[in-house]
Amino acid sequence: MATNQLNIGLFGFGVVGKGLYDVLHSTPTLQSTIKRICIKNPEKKRSIDAAHFTTDAQELLNDNDINVIVELIDDSVAAFDIVRTALQNGKAVVSANKKMIAEHFEELLALQEKYQTPFLYEASCCASMPIIRNLEEYYDNDLLQSIRGIINGSTNYILSKIFDEQLEFNAALLQAQQLGFAESNPKLDIGGFDAANKLAILLAHSFGVVAKTNAFLFNGIENISLNDATVAKEKQFAVKLVANAQKLNNGKLAAFVLPQFVAPSDDLYHVKNEFNAVTTESTFSDKHFFKGKGAGAFPTASAVLSDISALRYDYKYEYKKIHHQTDTVLSNDFYLKVFVSVDDISKLNKDAFEWIEEWHNELRFSWLTGVIHAGKLFESDWWKQPGVSLILYPNAIIEDVEYRKISKRSLELAGVV
Amino acid sequence: MATNQLNIGLFGFGVVGKGLYDVLHSTPTLQSTIKRICIKNPEKKRSIDAAHFTTDAQELLNDNDINVIVELIDDSVAAFDIVRTALQNGKAVVSANKKMIAEHFEELLALQEKYQTPFLYEASCCASMPIIRNLEEYYDNDLLQSIRGIINGSTNYILSKIFDEQLEFNAALLQAQQLGFAESNPKLDIGGFDAANKLAILLAHSFGVVAKTNAFLFNGIENISLNDATVAKEKQFAVKLVANAQKLNNGKLAAFVLPQFVAPSDDLYHVKNEFNAVTTESTFSDKHFFKGKGAGAFPTASAVLSDISALRYDYKYEYKKIHHQTDTVLSNDFYLKVFVSVDDISKLNKDAFEWIEEWHNELRFSWLTGVIHAGKLFESDWWKQPGVSLILYPNAIIEDVEYRKISKRSLELAGVV
Repeated sequence: MATNQLNIGLFGFGVVGKGLYDVLHSTPTLQSTIKRICIKNPEKKRSIDAAHFTTDAQELLNDNDINVIVELIDDSVAAFDIVRTALQNGKAVVSANKKMIAEHFEELLALQEKYQTPFLYEASCCASMPIIRNLEEYYDNDLLQSIRGIINGSTNYILSKIFDEQLEFNAALLQAQQLGFAESNPKLDIGGFDAANKLAILLAHSFGVVAKTNAFLFNGIENISLNDATVAKEKQFAVKLVANAQKLNNGKLAAFVLPQFVAPSDDLYHVKNEFNAVTTESTFSDKHFFKGKGAGAFPTASAVLSDISALRYDYKYEYKKIHHQTDTVLSNDFYLKVFVSVDDISKLNKDAFEWIEEWHNELRFSWLTGVIHAGKLFESDWWKQPGVSLILYPNAIIEDVEYRKISKRSLELAGVV
Repeated sequence: MATNQLNIGLFGFGVVGKGLYDVLHSTPTLQSTIKRICIKNPEKKRSIDAAHFTTDAQELLNDNDINVIVELIDDSVAAFDIVRTALQNGKAVVSANKKMIAEHFEELLALQEKYQTPFLYEASCCASMPIIRNLEEYYDNDLLQSIRGIINGSTNYILSKIFDEQLEFNAALLQAQQLGFAESNPKLDIGGFDAANKLAILLAHSFGVVAKTNAFLFNGIENISLNDATVAKEKQFAVKLVANAQKLNNGKLAAFVLPQFVAPSDDLYHVKNEFNAVTTESTFSDKHFFKGKGAGAFPTASAVLSDISALRYDYKYEYKKIHHQTDTVLSNDFYLKVFVSVDDISKLNKDAFEWIEEWHNELRFSWLTGVIHAGKLFESDWWKQPGVSLILYPNAIIEDVEYRKISKRSLELAGVV
């Protein structure tokens, strides 16, 4: 069994970088050593000897001894520069930077192809869970119907605290940040950007679709209020931020990241705090459910380590779906059953709905449930403004609408005029 | 991306063989065709043209056109002959026969080594779930602490029916058989042999331990009664047949398959009917939970198909744990907290217990909870006889017994003399 000795150049020494350093030093069988660590701020106090560090990226990128670059920095622009140069210099690269990967997926594919250097990024989705590897290696022949999951640990932590402990949003966010579950810029998490980046990456590995996040619907959890939580509980639901990609009857792919009501019979209902989970559905193997820690230094470091270990055996992604399933395209031509609440009725765009099913009007908190076309949501912003929550129902996708056009009429009857 | 054209010789055309045939014909991208099918009984009516079939194994094993043998027969002795000859003849082999694999693990390792031919068997454990592949490829560097799961779909189906629908054991077994979830010899399932075979295979891939099933404790669910179910429910538990391998503080490995009380907070509690599930615990990635269908024609065929697909890329198991973790050995030197019920008090071997915690004596149904040494269970049979149920408590393993030797005394006080 031929294995490669790996000499690692590490970029970044935050919680994950430090976690990786600790993990590598507890796993001597790995034949891998961190030769040098590039950091931004040399003044910061570190837990290990200053001799390990440099602020000069070129020192790592041009070192012929270093055959693996592990990129764990926050700044996605600088990260892409590092990764591009490393691949050009024939170095294998491991990254956890979902933002950078999602934004540059096509260029990164081309770089891997051109320089025949492996680029692995298991830690970019669901931290310790081997979801990319399984999509790439295992679900490659079965006919995948859908992939659906909770793929942002920070928002799931916040939602769990709002629901189980009635914490206010900001208090829950602060806790998540203190525990190291949140991105350094919390907007990435709570605005849904992080989950959208991950979904973009998963789309490539599950359905062979290379798409930027602006190609599909997504939103975060910033506007979810304790009032929304109360309605959810009355309906026996929890609220989760759910990423979803599902084959439609017409062969196209519906994809979105949106808050969703989740029933107790749904495996995702029981996924709490910083845990992530993914459900796959395929024609023959049926439903698979996978749950693990989706945030935190060690779980993320462990996924990085798993990539490093795979490099010892010359593993690289083959991108089989991209090469073989070239015909799958995204579509917003379907309907969604949604719950929408507003703190001010003037914010509600009632014309957007196909029909309304429930309507409740209270002082500073009105809500309805109804059916809306995904394309209309995609093209509008009213449902993202402060004071408006849009939450999907379970099994939200409706493909064949028998035009029960009671919509406008029911709005009139309900007095929403 | 170089891929191999696969010409398959298939042994067996039962539910799984037929499922595979159907699946292969729905997946043309796979570049794989079934050239010939070897069956035992040519008289049996089949759903496809008789020209596909032969009863002569040599026709497949000596056909130079055939480069992959897929072995899906029941008879483990005949299966091993087929697999050995195929590997000797330089053909890759895919099998789902856990009994054959567990019984011949060492010989099969040697054959793969000697003839450098791949032998894949993902379908042998948990059907469609890629558990072997993940243990082999992903959990190879992290420090695995335990693997625990429901790995027999048929017994889980039966236990679900006993618990949720108050079915009697035999009625539930009949249902499982009619649905094709049970082995053709039900004793393999309900006696725990099937789960034990799977645990033996998983031990090799998770901890590098090559052991036959007679090296560890196991039992099935034949003696679980509706009375036991009632006690479990009073205690808010479900009963599951759980396979467990756990690193002890002394570095040795505890391994067993036994019925267990499972609390609602345990992910396994929610695994019902023919579903299987596995929980891994490791130092850095923490807990992972994986659930999927563990029985049925298509889920099993889908795992077989995944192996076939992997052969196209020359995949083979590296058995990294076996080669790198040679120091892990099994041990029965630990204690277990158990529930034991008897229909006749004379069947209870009270001397076996370290101490007793609860004691209930009813007409034809007495039960106790207490602590017992695993080594003593391993060396005795009284707890397996008809009329006796032994069910583990949650977190059953006790390593450091502070010798609370109230045992004999408490038995006397309880009147068990």
